[in-house]
Amino acid sequence: MAQSSPVERAELGRRVGRANSAILARQRPRLAAVSDELGPITDALAALLKGGKRLRPAFAYWGFRGAGGVDSDEVVAAVASLEWLHACALIHDDVMDRSDTRRGAPSVHRQFAALHQSSDWCGAAEAFGESAAILLGDLCLIWADEAYNTSGLDQGALQRGRPVYDEMRTELMAGQYLDLMAQALGRSSVEQALRVATYKTAKYTVERPLHLGAALAGAPPSLLRAYSAYGLPLGEAFQLRDDLLGVFGDPSTTGKPAGDDLREGKRTVLIAYALAKADEEQSAVIGGRFGDPDLAEAEVVRLREVVEATGARAHCERLITERTTQALAALHAVDIDADARQVLHDLAGAATARTG
Amino acid sequence: MAQSSPVERAELGRRVGRANSAILARQRPRLAAVSDELGPITDALAALLKGGKRLRPAFAYWGFRGAGGVDSDEVVAAVASLEWLHACALIHDDVMDRSDTRRGAPSVHRQFAALHQSSDWCGAAEAFGESAAILLGDLCLIWADEAYNTSGLDQGALQRGRPVYDEMRTELMAGQYLDLMAQALGRSSVEQALRVATYKTAKYTVERPLHLGAALAGAPPSLLRAYSAYGLPLGEAFQLRDDLLGVFGDPSTTGKPAGDDLREGKRTVLIAYALAKADEEQSAVIGGRFGDPDLAEAEVVRLREVVEATGARAHCERLITERTTQALAALHAVDIDADARQVLHDLAGAATARTG
Repeated sequence: MAQSSPVERAELGRRVGRANSAILARQRPRLAAVSDELGPITDALAALLKGGKRLRPAFAYWGFRGAGGVDSDEVVAAVASLEWLHACALIHDDVMDRSDTRRGAPSVHRQFAALHQSSDWCGAAEAFGESAAILLGDLCLIWADEAYNTSGLDQGALQRGRPVYDEMRTELMAGQYLDLMAQALGRSSVEQALRVATYKTAKYTVERPLHLGAALAGAPPSLLRAYSAYGLPLGEAFQLRDDLLGVFGDPSTTGKPAGDDLREGKRTVLIAYALAKADEEQSAVIGGRFGDPDLAEAEVVRLREVVEATGARAHCERLITERTTQALAALHAVDIDADARQVLHDLAGAATARTG
Repeated sequence: MAQSSPVERAELGRRVGRANSAILARQRPRLAAVSDELGPITDALAALLKGGKRLRPAFAYWGFRGAGGVDSDEVVAAVASLEWLHACALIHDDVMDRSDTRRGAPSVHRQFAALHQSSDWCGAAEAFGESAAILLGDLCLIWADEAYNTSGLDQGALQRGRPVYDEMRTELMAGQYLDLMAQALGRSSVEQALRVATYKTAKYTVERPLHLGAALAGAPPSLLRAYSAYGLPLGEAFQLRDDLLGVFGDPSTTGKPAGDDLREGKRTVLIAYALAKADEEQSAVIGGRFGDPDLAEAEVVRLREVVEATGARAHCERLITERTTQALAALHAVDIDADARQVLHDLAGAATARTG
């Protein structure tokens, strides 16, 4: 089978980038009219929106094309709105997780804390940074909506997409809350961790964007079901790859410090499986160090070794292969536009075999 | 001139409440399908949405009626969405201000911190509460949008309202950021404080809701300008009343601790004016105690006395009277539906003469 060209995939990414630059170009004078004190807001968002894999718009766009939708700048603008929604999720997530970095740069709340510090303002720099990040995340959520509504796509199509959009956003926040609960409960079975992965990632990153594209194109329910059969296992595989990168990833490609998930104590499927399979000594090592924000480099290495020794890493790799195979089988069983099928096939590879 | 009946005004409030209960009734099973761990989310939001003055839906509704719009449950549902937007603003604002109470009950982040504590979960209860509140605020912002889009109002009307809705939401967040900056700069001229009041309150609480109603009814630009002439001074008066209540208000009617703004160090117009007019001794008293979260009752009383002695309280009362008079003059100069004019006249009184 012929491969879709990476250039072609990159081209969609660039079009999404241009659509979001247009949104920023509209918001910048609007904020400037209020006060020039608002400049740092659009600067920070412009920098954040430049990065990322733009996977959600890609799944939505190819979900649209797969359903027979015809390419236009308007549909690209509509799916580009998912990057704004995602920016909200990232900014608020980083506040909640107290993460210092995002996409290889300081996280938004760290940037505003640094601005506070360097400007020698009153009060606590950290609190200022967090408050600013809460507001910037809110703005992203609002602008996502505005981007979707002003994409220029016809009202009928936008109206068809809205129930999916609403479902997706509520599920995203529900998944985030479940994740919070998993940390609060301080334990998480493999099953619970998989449920978080389903809502936080599988549905939000793959299935719902595909459904959104299908709805914009006016596809029948049968195609939405077929997209679920492809999207849910693929999304799970995507999250499992994320779990592995969070522990074993290379900071130069992930943009996050090495072993970040270990310091944060993230209750991922990988960790749940490691704890389920660990012997007494391994449990003691994990229990003693996991979730310590001050973990030294050598301790990260030691923890990695233990997680690997439980067989959890190999197990997750096996699951990724299984789920990806399952996703591709579902994709090839459904009758959709051939170009879209090819790109969705390749996206599955890109999403699950990535290094960052 | 005849007065609009308070019963009539209360009836709109009840209809708004019913519309929002319907939104909650739709969201509850959706979240329950994800996990029963999500129950506290809808419970907390149901409690929060029960309270409040529902002023923004009222201005939007009467802005609609004033423009000749015909009453329907659909338009009530559309304007009721403003209560969800406002719930987001309140929840996130309380996180940013570290406020313990809201509408006479613990603030959302305090409720979730308490849940964490009583459940004996892992990690810091306070951080859990704040994270949960960030997510609940996000959900409110999302549901505001869903409530608007699913109100049943015809698509043409909704489409006309969207630019106003977008402008309003962006201005709200811009105003919040300016407020944050005023705290960070640790000083605020009367002029700067008025600008925050304009964006955070005058536009967001009065002018834009009126514009939204007008847009839904398909009103011409001239009516939008007339609504601004009424709404902006009225909104300013509303914020000035808020400033006074934050310092001199009675906790039994405000639902906030006495002198809350003094403990929080809120840079309001009232405080900016007091500082501008204070003599050396008065400046020292304010400078030494203002913004201290542990302020004792007696110190609150002392600070109040000093603020009053500078003439700031009387000045704000004068401004409220002036602005309200200006608003009413503008209202009576414009040709709108007589019932709507009557209610908008009375709302001006209710918004500026309130005790909570």
